[in-house]
Amino acid sequence: MSAEIIDGKKIAEDIRSVLAKEINSLDGDGRPGLAVVLIGSDPASEVYVRMKKKACADIGVESYEYSYGADYGEDALLDLISDLNEDPKVNGILVQLPLPAGYDEKKVIEAIAPEKDVDGFHPQNVGRIVIGDTDCFLPCTPYGCQILIKRVVGDLKGKHVVIVGRSNLVGKPLANMLIQKSDMANCIVTVCHSAAADIGLYTRQADILVAAAGSPGLITADMVKPGAVVIDVGTTRIENPDKPGTKRLAGDVDFESVSQVASAITPVPGGVGPMTITMLLSNTVKAYKMHNGIA
Amino acid sequence: MSAEIIDGKKIAEDIRSVLAKEINSLDGDGRPGLAVVLIGSDPASEVYVRMKKKACADIGVESYEYSYGADYGEDALLDLISDLNEDPKVNGILVQLPLPAGYDEKKVIEAIAPEKDVDGFHPQNVGRIVIGDTDCFLPCTPYGCQILIKRVVGDLKGKHVVIVGRSNLVGKPLANMLIQKSDMANCIVTVCHSAAADIGLYTRQADILVAAAGSPGLITADMVKPGAVVIDVGTTRIENPDKPGTKRLAGDVDFESVSQVASAITPVPGGVGPMTITMLLSNTVKAYKMHNGIA
Repeated sequence: MSAEIIDGKKIAEDIRSVLAKEINSLDGDGRPGLAVVLIGSDPASEVYVRMKKKACADIGVESYEYSYGADYGEDALLDLISDLNEDPKVNGILVQLPLPAGYDEKKVIEAIAPEKDVDGFHPQNVGRIVIGDTDCFLPCTPYGCQILIKRVVGDLKGKHVVIVGRSNLVGKPLANMLIQKSDMANCIVTVCHSAAADIGLYTRQADILVAAAGSPGLITADMVKPGAVVIDVGTTRIENPDKPGTKRLAGDVDFESVSQVASAITPVPGGVGPMTITMLLSNTVKAYKMHNGIA
Repeated sequence: MSAEIIDGKKIAEDIRSVLAKEINSLDGDGRPGLAVVLIGSDPASEVYVRMKKKACADIGVESYEYSYGADYGEDALLDLISDLNEDPKVNGILVQLPLPAGYDEKKVIEAIAPEKDVDGFHPQNVGRIVIGDTDCFLPCTPYGCQILIKRVVGDLKGKHVVIVGRSNLVGKPLANMLIQKSDMANCIVTVCHSAAADIGLYTRQADILVAAAGSPGLITADMVKPGAVVIDVGTTRIENPDKPGTKRLAGDVDFESVSQVASAITPVPGGVGPMTITMLLSNTVKAYKMHNGIA
C-alpha cells in the first residue's frame, strides 16, 4: 500500500483564494489589517515575518510591520501593543516569537487584546478553546492540522486521534480542539509524550496520528496502524545528507517507511507548513469581521 | 482481590486541618474571605451554599453570602460582581451555578476577576492550566481528583490516565492538568466520551481510570484493568431501591464489581465529593496569599 500524499500547499492555496474573494467582496474600502511586530534580528524570525507580509499582500490583507532592535525594551513593546490594541485599522496583532532575552513572553502575550490575538496564544483564547466557546481564535498550526484532518477523514466522530507531543503551540491546543462536540472534532484523543515508556503502544492505536514532538524520524512504520492518517507537524532543521554543508527540514515521521502503511500522510515540507500562515490569514479576516459586526 | 477504598472524607479533613493551621498562623488579623453568591431558590444550590459557608467557618475563612431571588437581574448581578472584584476583604468570588433562566452564565463567569475566580471557571484560568502557568486557580473537582490520584499512586510519570467524560467541570480541565510536565502530573492522557463506539476499549488500558460521565453504573468490572486505580466522579441522584420514594447518590462506577478488580477505588459518597469544597477552601487561601504578597 502506498499512502495518499496530503497536499497541504494546494489546500492552503484553495483556502487563500476563498479568503481573497471574501476580502474583495467586503463593502466599502475597509480591509483586514495585521500588525506584525519583530524584535531583534533572529534570521528565522525575519524569514517568517517576510513570508507573513507577502501572504497578506497576496490576498488583500494590509500588513503593518514594526521592527525594532533587541534593545527596544519590554516597556516600549508593551506601549506599542497597547497602541495597536486601540488602533482601529489593526484587526490582528502578531508578535513574532521567540523574543530576545530580557523580554517576558508571558507578559507580552497577555498584553495583546484577546480579540486581536490572531495567533491564539492568549490564555483567554486558549481557555475558550477548552470550554468550546467559538468566540476565540484557534492557534494557527493546530488549526491547520484540524482542517487537513477534516478534509481527508470526513466524519471524525469517535475516531481515535493520538497526538505525540504536548507543546503549547501544537499538542495541547489540538487535543482540546479535537475532543469538542462539533462537526470538526468529536474524537477520542490521547496525548502521549516523552514520559511514556513506549510511545508505540499508543501510536499503533491511532486512526489519526499527529506527530508534533520535534524529534526527526521518531515515528517509524512499526508504530503506525495500517490505514492510519498521519499528520507530521515536525519541522526540525538538520544537516542535509544529500548536500553536505546545507540544511533541510525534517519531520517527526519517517516518510519512506510510514507512507507504505498509512492511508494518507503529510509530507515535510508541503504538508502542515503552508497551512500555518493560511490560518493566520483566516484568523485576521475573522477578526476584521468580528470588529465590524459582519456575520 | 479487593480494592483499597480511598477515603476522600479523611483526606479532605487532613487538608482542611492543614489549611486551618495555616490561616491561624497568618500575621495580623487578616483572614481569607469568600463571597458566595446565590441567585434564585434551587434546593440543591441552597444545600451547596450552606455546606460551603459551614466549611469556611470551620477553618477560619470569612464567608459573605449574597442571596437574591431569580428576579434580581443580570445587570444587578454584574454590578455586584464588579463591587466584589474591588472589595479588598473578598479574596474569592463564587457564583453558585446553575443560574436561573435569563442569566448569561458565560457573561457572569467572565465578569469575575480572574485573580478572584476560586472556582477556576474563567477562561483565563482555564487557559493558564493548559499552558502550564501555575499562576491560576484549578477548578475544585478535578483538583480534588488530582490530589487523590497523587496520594494513592505516588509517581505519576508515564501512567496512562483514561478519563471518561469531557465536561468543562471535570473531564477537560483534569486532562489538561494531568498532561503537564510536573510532579503532580506527567501522565499519558486519553479522553473518551459518548462518541466512542466502545468505551471499554479505552478504559481497559487505564492505569488510572477517571469516570466523569454522569451515567450511573457505566463502568463495570470487565471494563477495568486488574490493579487499576479508579476515581468515580459521578454523582447522579437516583431512586433508592432500598428505601422506595427516597433518592440516593449514584456514581458512574459499579462499585460492587469494580472493587474486585481495581487496586484502589473511591466510593460514592465519601470519595471525590468531600474533596471539592476542600479545594475551594484551598483556592481561597491561595487567593488570600496572592493578594497579600505571601509566598
